[in-house]
Amino acid sequence: MTTGSTVTVGITPIAWTGGRLRLLDQTRLPGEQVWLEFDDYREVAAAIREMRVRGAPAIGVAAAYGMSLAARQSRATDMPALLHDLDVAMETLGATRPTAVNLFWALRRMRAVAESATMTEDARARLHVEAIAIHAQDVAGNRQMGQFGATLIPDGAAILTHCNAGALATGGYGSALGVIRAAHGAGNNVRVYADETRPLLQGARLTAWELVHDGIPTTLIADTMAGSLMRRGLITCALVGADRIAANGDVANKIGTYQVAVLAHENGLPFYVAAPTSTFDLSLPTGDDIPIEERAGDEVTHFAGVRTAPVGIMVANHAFDVTPAMYVTAIITERGIAYPPYSTSLAKLVEG
Amino acid sequence: MTTGSTVTVGITPIAWTGGRLRLLDQTRLPGEQVWLEFDDYREVAAAIREMRVRGAPAIGVAAAYGMSLAARQSRATDMPALLHDLDVAMETLGATRPTAVNLFWALRRMRAVAESATMTEDARARLHVEAIAIHAQDVAGNRQMGQFGATLIPDGAAILTHCNAGALATGGYGSALGVIRAAHGAGNNVRVYADETRPLLQGARLTAWELVHDGIPTTLIADTMAGSLMRRGLITCALVGADRIAANGDVANKIGTYQVAVLAHENGLPFYVAAPTSTFDLSLPTGDDIPIEERAGDEVTHFAGVRTAPVGIMVANHAFDVTPAMYVTAIITERGIAYPPYSTSLAKLVEG
Repeated sequence: MTTGSTVTVGITPIAWTGGRLRLLDQTRLPGEQVWLEFDDYREVAAAIREMRVRGAPAIGVAAAYGMSLAARQSRATDMPALLHDLDVAMETLGATRPTAVNLFWALRRMRAVAESATMTEDARARLHVEAIAIHAQDVAGNRQMGQFGATLIPDGAAILTHCNAGALATGGYGSALGVIRAAHGAGNNVRVYADETRPLLQGARLTAWELVHDGIPTTLIADTMAGSLMRRGLITCALVGADRIAANGDVANKIGTYQVAVLAHENGLPFYVAAPTSTFDLSLPTGDDIPIEERAGDEVTHFAGVRTAPVGIMVANHAFDVTPAMYVTAIITERGIAYPPYSTSLAKLVEG
Repeated sequence: MTTGSTVTVGITPIAWTGGRLRLLDQTRLPGEQVWLEFDDYREVAAAIREMRVRGAPAIGVAAAYGMSLAARQSRATDMPALLHDLDVAMETLGATRPTAVNLFWALRRMRAVAESATMTEDARARLHVEAIAIHAQDVAGNRQMGQFGATLIPDGAAILTHCNAGALATGGYGSALGVIRAAHGAGNNVRVYADETRPLLQGARLTAWELVHDGIPTTLIADTMAGSLMRRGLITCALVGADRIAANGDVANKIGTYQVAVLAHENGLPFYVAAPTSTFDLSLPTGDDIPIEERAGDEVTHFAGVRTAPVGIMVANHAFDVTPAMYVTAIITERGIAYPPYSTSLAKLVEG
């Protein structure tokens, strides 16, 4: 990995140029725009683990490019040896973050492409093309999702969003923020309230940055303020992304999402989830089976590098929660909008 | 105001020694224990506004000492002149923070004592005694509140608390944390989950510090995690303080309290409020009439001098919210426990 120059660019968190993967280092935003360059899949895995690239669809895209890099790094001259090396890479990349299912979806898709080849050079070429296709399809899917989702956003909407389900969380354009971009682009007068999203502040650092960049009126709030704003009538709907969606419509997403959903429910407001169908995990009957990542306690005891809690305190830091389907008004995908009961509507979208 | 030496002391946020008011600077905790000394009421007002002393009962106690200082500062030689100077001081101290009613309660109580005197030196002496009495009564009341409240905390309880309603928020011992201290002191095996409480992190900085100090097992969480922990069955009740309680039992408290109450309700858990009767404002029929303080946006966009949000973002920063009485299981006071309907039970406690 090498650190590229600091340049101002449009919002594209992932790029493939000159045979290298380039990632916009999201841990440095919004203060600095630093691009990292990768030619080793193991460093891509480290970047995913360290959340230099994050957001379920973006992790999937980065992992796909990681598999393409792994194929290039491999000295294998026959297919069994190459598949072995790819399996090692798949294990390394798959061990980074357990909750977002798009990671495993992308790895499996890349593995299947490799298996379909008979010659190693052909496999390397196909993997390269497939990673680019996964990336391009994610962006195109987000634009389609935006068109579907915008039909749910009336003129004058005040939308609460949590974490970052934007261009930075995807191949580009965004899932939840893609819907907001589409509604804004259609001329609807929309306003956004962005939860800062402790502990890692993806709302304050990333969502706020994207929406200021796009000129969409956005108000930053602490996570403690969402319910009160709903009760005071200042919010008209909540809209978030997802890391994994079970067959019954239970949604795993960034910690704090469950709270937003309960508060929306209690205040009679719609709670929408925008996520590509690659986020579905129909092998899981309910969200209770979704593995939840636990992260280091210093993310909670520190704020922006400054220790805020006393030495000796215990910490809990589960990075995701599960919102039961009963709180989810609709799930917006690139194939259309699913409504309850999700046990049939999600399966239909996937089959359809 | 002078900055005292950095010394380690027990948890007493307010002290009166050598004719000066001493306040433990709560903006410096938990990193440093710095005592500030005051002989000018205007600097006491600034310390309240800057939240060097905070928490509704502690603000009331500090303001009472501020009135005593104002009487000493006054050169008045007759009662009308002294009362005029006290009214100026009352206005300055009362203009610091609008939501906590204990501030106005303490100021009115001090004003009434001054009015009862016929000679200025007698008034000065009575004000001094009254401030000390308000302070002592607050601590004694908290211990009594602790005894009442502990009856609601079973062995094995896992208590979620928000913000800091501890020794630091009061004259000493604490309201919500006083109940926890009493339950712990009675030999009950209790555990605490402390919300960090953005934007000013009173949970991470102050509650965590107090409870580590007392050896009560405490786990720090981000504000985004409370609901998920409830849903996973890890919390058995929520317990918070209050800044003002209306006649119908609506409770104004630190921003984020409403969310905790809704989440407890949704998960079938009791939500308790511990506050002295000086927090009651029975002149207000409902919480809709409680003024809510708005604070500067940089509390949300920055932490410890580090900017975490992009330039150009709008910010909302209301410091308190109102929890409707329907979510409040019981209100614990120094005179006993009030249950719904609060319109009768609160009035009864005050009259009784």
